[in-house]
Amino acid sequence: MKLIIGNKNYSTWSLRGWLVLRGFDIDFEEVEMALFSTEFYDEIAKYSGAAKVPVLVDGDISVWDSLAICEYVNDTYLDGKGWPSEPAQKAKARAIAAEMHSGFGALRNEMPMNIRGRRKVSPSRDCEKDIARIDDIWSSQMKEFSEKGGWLFGDFSIADVMYAPVVLRFITYGVTLSDDAQRYATHVIQNAALQQWIEESQQDTSVIPEDEAGVDVA
Amino acid sequence: MKLIIGNKNYSTWSLRGWLVLRGFDIDFEEVEMALFSTEFYDEIAKYSGAAKVPVLVDGDISVWDSLAICEYVNDTYLDGKGWPSEPAQKAKARAIAAEMHSGFGALRNEMPMNIRGRRKVSPSRDCEKDIARIDDIWSSQMKEFSEKGGWLFGDFSIADVMYAPVVLRFITYGVTLSDDAQRYATHVIQNAALQQWIEESQQDTSVIPEDEAGVDVA
Repeated sequence: MKLIIGNKNYSTWSLRGWLVLRGFDIDFEEVEMALFSTEFYDEIAKYSGAAKVPVLVDGDISVWDSLAICEYVNDTYLDGKGWPSEPAQKAKARAIAAEMHSGFGALRNEMPMNIRGRRKVSPSRDCEKDIARIDDIWSSQMKEFSEKGGWLFGDFSIADVMYAPVVLRFITYGVTLSDDAQRYATHVIQNAALQQWIEESQQDTSVIPEDEAGVDVA
Repeated sequence: MKLIIGNKNYSTWSLRGWLVLRGFDIDFEEVEMALFSTEFYDEIAKYSGAAKVPVLVDGDISVWDSLAICEYVNDTYLDGKGWPSEPAQKAKARAIAAEMHSGFGALRNEMPMNIRGRRKVSPSRDCEKDIARIDDIWSSQMKEFSEKGGWLFGDFSIADVMYAPVVLRFITYGVTLSDDAQRYATHVIQNAALQQWIEESQQDTSVIPEDEAGVDVA
């Protein structure tokens, strides 16, 4: 099984596909390619007309899109353990994950993932609303679950996979969170798999100008 | 079980939540509310901090987001029949559905769903790329499956639910498709459940100015 990903410093969607595999200790081969390179478009066209990373290639099966990869991995390798087992919690975890998957457009635009950067930006009102909503999700889950494992639903789940890039955005742009939400962010950042990604992203010397938002404060 | 939805003429996400239930003959109570009204915000806050429709309320369980609702319905009421049964096809259906869920931003912005309208717009290059990609998905699935039921994967599935609003956008804005893709669009529009939604949307007299794009050609 191989996972095709983009630049580790920038590609939030790649991080999700990677983290669901590494976080659940599933073996895979990693193929990293510079986004927007000719090599990238040539390679990605073999697997998906969507021309986007990540793509998971498992024998004859190709899955593109981070959430579809998470569901595929959950069905095929995790026997359903990618989501909480209790039905109401599973439904909530899926709703939270889907909200991240399709939403938070202002946050995405104004605070692109740039792991090695330390930046200052002036967030719009919509971006501030996105941050407040995420703080609300994290802190309400922490009130319920932090004693049971530190993840959004106690044990590590696909919901955590979907929000991990946001934790990294918040560090880059120095976003202040409520105490409960910060407790979650601190827990996420200590995860060994995520630490590995961060270390590897430091070796990524590529520069994608569109994702270099804000004033350097490093 | 009740489904909270917004204005039928405009709300693509509501249509998806509604169509997965109606299309699979599942009983539910429908609660339609005008988007952005005070009543709407008061009601929606009871079920989800995301403040977005649709929301499915099933006893103690609340699920927001159209894709999460589809997965919940699939797990709880369809015994998995919401997706194709063959694993590679299921993975592809989920990837296609997820691509719709998070993507096609230019199409969404420039061709908002407005079922009763007939409009002319000048699509940007990004919007034209979105249309071409959707044509590619539909026509390649039709080449494989049109003899087996007319839906993207033969039988009606969540992938069709996710793309139904796009069929309605294409009619409103007079988008020309390839023959295979048009065959799919024609099949979708003849569906009895979708016909019911269209008829009910004609009785929706609300006007959301942001969604009234283009020059009237009715």
